[in-house]
Amino acid sequence: MSKYWSKLTKSLTPYVPGEQPKDKKYIKLNTNENPYPPSPKVLEAIRNAVNEDLKLYPDPNGDELKKVIADYHGISVNQVFVGNGSDEILSFAFATFFDSSEKVLFPDITYSFYPVYANFYNLWYKEIPLEEDFSLPLDKFNIPNGGIILANPNAPTSKYVSLDDLELLIKNNLEKVVILDEAYIDFGGESAIKLINKYPNLLVIHTLSKSRSLAGLRVGLAMGNQELIEGLNRVKNSFNSYTLDRLALAGAIAAYKDKEYFEKTRKKVMETRERTKKEMRALGFNVLDSMTNFIFASHPKVNGEKIFLSLKERGILVRYFNKPKIDNYIRISIGTDKEMDSLIKNLKEIII
Amino acid sequence: MSKYWSKLTKSLTPYVPGEQPKDKKYIKLNTNENPYPPSPKVLEAIRNAVNEDLKLYPDPNGDELKKVIADYHGISVNQVFVGNGSDEILSFAFATFFDSSEKVLFPDITYSFYPVYANFYNLWYKEIPLEEDFSLPLDKFNIPNGGIILANPNAPTSKYVSLDDLELLIKNNLEKVVILDEAYIDFGGESAIKLINKYPNLLVIHTLSKSRSLAGLRVGLAMGNQELIEGLNRVKNSFNSYTLDRLALAGAIAAYKDKEYFEKTRKKVMETRERTKKEMRALGFNVLDSMTNFIFASHPKVNGEKIFLSLKERGILVRYFNKPKIDNYIRISIGTDKEMDSLIKNLKEIII
Repeated sequence: MSKYWSKLTKSLTPYVPGEQPKDKKYIKLNTNENPYPPSPKVLEAIRNAVNEDLKLYPDPNGDELKKVIADYHGISVNQVFVGNGSDEILSFAFATFFDSSEKVLFPDITYSFYPVYANFYNLWYKEIPLEEDFSLPLDKFNIPNGGIILANPNAPTSKYVSLDDLELLIKNNLEKVVILDEAYIDFGGESAIKLINKYPNLLVIHTLSKSRSLAGLRVGLAMGNQELIEGLNRVKNSFNSYTLDRLALAGAIAAYKDKEYFEKTRKKVMETRERTKKEMRALGFNVLDSMTNFIFASHPKVNGEKIFLSLKERGILVRYFNKPKIDNYIRISIGTDKEMDSLIKNLKEIII
Repeated sequence: MSKYWSKLTKSLTPYVPGEQPKDKKYIKLNTNENPYPPSPKVLEAIRNAVNEDLKLYPDPNGDELKKVIADYHGISVNQVFVGNGSDEILSFAFATFFDSSEKVLFPDITYSFYPVYANFYNLWYKEIPLEEDFSLPLDKFNIPNGGIILANPNAPTSKYVSLDDLELLIKNNLEKVVILDEAYIDFGGESAIKLINKYPNLLVIHTLSKSRSLAGLRVGLAMGNQELIEGLNRVKNSFNSYTLDRLALAGAIAAYKDKEYFEKTRKKVMETRERTKKEMRALGFNVLDSMTNFIFASHPKVNGEKIFLSLKERGILVRYFNKPKIDNYIRISIGTDKEMDSLIKNLKEIII
């Protein structure tokens, strides 16, 4: 602690991102990156943007990107917000829609950045416990609140809630904003974007880091009714006007234009996930039904931390959370088939 | 106003960035961009980074960039913070070092984002009036405060305060943080970086948007003692872990490595500024002594807004602030010699 820090700074417990190893070459299955490279058209579009125009500020509103996204999803431009990764947008959203007077609701087991945002903006929150099987007790969110945020599918559990169930929640909470963080929606779920015209309290957040293989480019987006988007713009323009650089804008535009590549790679990830699930179950693992690009699993005989450490020793990095209720689980990102073959081979040896 | 907005959102008056025209081709002298392209080595380094690694998250700490900057300035790595443009770093700094219990001090005429940040974090502030000639009344900052932020050289006035004068201010305010926003320091001023080992309360903020021709890449940095940098990291990691994408990191590293190009272009900008100043003075303009890449000027016969509008009509975009004390001035970014020739020619016609 430093005497120069504000009270806020002293009170913070920052988020700890997954390890980005520099020491040696791992099979990296720990931060839910896509195993496939970005579309060649994305790389080409970025290369074309590497020119002397970099001396000029980017469009602070990202209008061209918004237009492409709006067309892609069949919504209007003023229903789209773009930002420097979905983490930044989530942070803006906490500031834009939540007040300290009422508790924000989210599950006890979910993306661990949510309580960090809440603390940063000095917001109260209530963590709603997931069921034993990690399913979401939607009825328990039916209490007075200052807003709700849910990851669907949820992380790190990989579980998905149907749109019908979520719609009920959104409809029952019309006075407060419901944020759906759909970072993993493209791996088998159905997006709630189709509901934004129906519910003015619904904000849907997407990222290009997972299903579009662009974790290194830092682009996310939010979609919702015009008032919500305008609120996000107010907050953004009180924080940093130019959040997206010219290259990120160019790459993101190209990513939405190459739907074919997107479809091909996300299907491949889902196929690899399904067969990995089967193979892990054959090894006795308890594998949750995943609708994401990762698997959440435990084994009855070897505890999660031991599996995590053994895999790391063998050059395979997965994620382990030393946290009540999930401290016997490991989260494994879906890699290429070859990487998953290596994972299975090593898991076999570890659990013997 | 929307019922879904937080009290904070409702209270905000967002920053309005300078116009980024899309309708037609202007001589663009309105947002203090560098008229020269980024170093060819920067473009090459970025091109080399446009590869499949974009599927992976960037280094959240930007360690390699920090190392290059530390070596460049002869400081240590833990005295460097990097971010998504200096605007983002300024925002983090307001959160990290300032409390709502005491007033933050800054001049009444300065970068207009400062009061916006203060409002965003619900901080009190006091604007210290500049002197009639826009010089900084340093003695007036010698009052109880919760921190001080100064742009040196100041914007939009272009005026510079000597390091000796500033050192006195920093020394007299050892209990609170003094932030020096040196966005324009490379155009003739002397940086306070040399003082960071002496004063634990000093934070110096730089940007690559001006003197390194990279406004489109969004990279800024802060330098100060380790405790201050650690505080910034706490705040950053409570807001967004991955603020800099892989391409921005690669380009910024290359920019600091090509010192020769940097020296050449910044000298060229200063030369063009000096001769533009002379020519404008010959036309009767009151031109402040600039240590920046822009000129702040008024004319005794034609008012600032009229000059701004006339120039715009003629295809030259400069910046006009409709604000007390400076509403008769225009701010003109230094362009190429050819662009400034065109400016002078048009100014001549306007003031006749």
